[in-house]
Amino acid sequence: MSGFCTIAIDAMGGDFGPRVTVPATVEALERYPGLTIKLVGQIDSFTPFLHNIPASVRARLQPVQADGVIAMDEKPSHALRKGQNTSLGVALQLVADGQASACVSAGNTGALMVLGRRVLRMLEGIDRPAIVSAVPTQAGHCYMLDLGANVDCCAEHLLQFAIMGSVMTQAVDAVAAPRVGLLNIGQEAIKGNEQVKLASMLISTYGRLNYIGYIEGDDIFAGKADVVVCDGFVGNIALKSSEGVSRLVTQRLGVAFGRTFYRRMLAWLARPLLRELGQQLDPARRNGASLLGLQGIVVKSHGGADRACFGYAIDEAIAEVRMDVPRRISEQLAASLA
Amino acid sequence: MSGFCTIAIDAMGGDFGPRVTVPATVEALERYPGLTIKLVGQIDSFTPFLHNIPASVRARLQPVQADGVIAMDEKPSHALRKGQNTSLGVALQLVADGQASACVSAGNTGALMVLGRRVLRMLEGIDRPAIVSAVPTQAGHCYMLDLGANVDCCAEHLLQFAIMGSVMTQAVDAVAAPRVGLLNIGQEAIKGNEQVKLASMLISTYGRLNYIGYIEGDDIFAGKADVVVCDGFVGNIALKSSEGVSRLVTQRLGVAFGRTFYRRMLAWLARPLLRELGQQLDPARRNGASLLGLQGIVVKSHGGADRACFGYAIDEAIAEVRMDVPRRISEQLAASLA
Repeated sequence: MSGFCTIAIDAMGGDFGPRVTVPATVEALERYPGLTIKLVGQIDSFTPFLHNIPASVRARLQPVQADGVIAMDEKPSHALRKGQNTSLGVALQLVADGQASACVSAGNTGALMVLGRRVLRMLEGIDRPAIVSAVPTQAGHCYMLDLGANVDCCAEHLLQFAIMGSVMTQAVDAVAAPRVGLLNIGQEAIKGNEQVKLASMLISTYGRLNYIGYIEGDDIFAGKADVVVCDGFVGNIALKSSEGVSRLVTQRLGVAFGRTFYRRMLAWLARPLLRELGQQLDPARRNGASLLGLQGIVVKSHGGADRACFGYAIDEAIAEVRMDVPRRISEQLAASLA
Repeated sequence: MSGFCTIAIDAMGGDFGPRVTVPATVEALERYPGLTIKLVGQIDSFTPFLHNIPASVRARLQPVQADGVIAMDEKPSHALRKGQNTSLGVALQLVADGQASACVSAGNTGALMVLGRRVLRMLEGIDRPAIVSAVPTQAGHCYMLDLGANVDCCAEHLLQFAIMGSVMTQAVDAVAAPRVGLLNIGQEAIKGNEQVKLASMLISTYGRLNYIGYIEGDDIFAGKADVVVCDGFVGNIALKSSEGVSRLVTQRLGVAFGRTFYRRMLAWLARPLLRELGQQLDPARRNGASLLGLQGIVVKSHGGADRACFGYAIDEAIAEVRMDVPRRISEQLAASLA
């Protein structure tokens, strides 16, 4: 990282809370000498994990007290009511107040959505935040959005997702003209629903994207597009299905390998490879997902993230800060209105 | 198979036409001594593939001339206009006339949908046909529908899919009370769209199904349900995504294996296992998909199906004939109205 930045971390979020977030914070501070982290939550609960930290790191770790915690299964409406003094609410407020450049949380996605929207507000020209994540492909990875923030999207929302995804890919991956594909069904009876057909027309007409048209489910992983656009219902199910399949493959490989002594031996030899692969193919667990469309950077780590995965989410937040993704999205939107 | 049955096969359908359909037909006749196949198409084009067939098989293979062929990329509306004297149209008509108990085609899905609906008509109480296929799971397989016949479904359609899928699983797999799950998104902001919430209420209220509620994308492959219900847009994308991932896994395994000499050797040893696995995980290519909801049995083989896969589609048709799936669906619907 060139220069300095400050990130606010919701220490209480996720299935493991401070047990994962605090060590991941310490490691990130070791990785990035210019980084400062405001660690938000019940300070008493995370001090046990702050032993034996070098002074140079400890100096850049700023605990911030917040009494409230939003449970993983708490309803968004409830989270919104009690949001103010929760670890998540305070972390987001630090971003809104300019005291941090990004917020990272492994907490409740619904709460993150509604609080993020209220505290940080939407970018001008964007109606709804979208969840985006890097998904592995045969060519490397692509960015897919929305992954579950919006279950009923109209064509205009899909256009906004396309713009945001394209800008993010340009910024973070330095791809000059990211190929944007719209997820649809192929050769079947009626090609796509009305909303997708209309969105395709809107994206074509918009003209400022490298729009490659419709892509199908299998094209996501073949690497046909750099940005895959879909509504949150479809995106969430496609992503979770793909995680399910990669787990199925691992299980089936185990069974197939296990059938004879020779195969069991092969399986034993191949074990590290399979583990490596399983990790690569579980994007939600491995990488953070970003909330795009807000006036600020918010990265969501998987609820079950371990220390390494929470660390990847911090890395992602830093990359977005460095490339100033929200400002770039705003500029793109402003340019297209001008 | 107990007893005798007659199947009509669209010899011209699929990417390879008679080159695949005729040898698959001959092999099926060898497998099932009580089977008769009416092979529909341009007889001249498939006679070259009828060499050296035992007389006992040849006697049960009845060529039926049809001049027209529906192209793989032909629009459904166009197929409907020219349908009458095409190989697909004639094969379906044989079922409608009671001269065959099922129709198998590897042709254009859209054409199969619209012609099937016109020639065979819908079952009383079912509004739209649905495409169903067996999908591999950690526990074996489940049936998933709809896989692309209907892009905009209402809650009532999803209830009908649930009923049809449950009856099919009872009949073909002999599962007494198949667990029916409704595909939805999980912990995210807003749980599911309106149509899915309403469908869940309808299925619960219907009361005659073993309804287990919502399941998520990864649950499909974990084997949580015997029947997975979703609209055709979502189902198609989930299925194609999962095919894409299984191809990605194979490719990544190759790369991971190939990195060192030791790993290359391992890869070479593991090759047959990986091929076996790849086949298992490509349900659309491997198994046929059935069109449920028509007054007749229609099985769609993958357009790119090879001889073995087209043979699986014939097997599926025979299983459905044996269990009289459409009659069972009618009875279930009649019972629930009584």
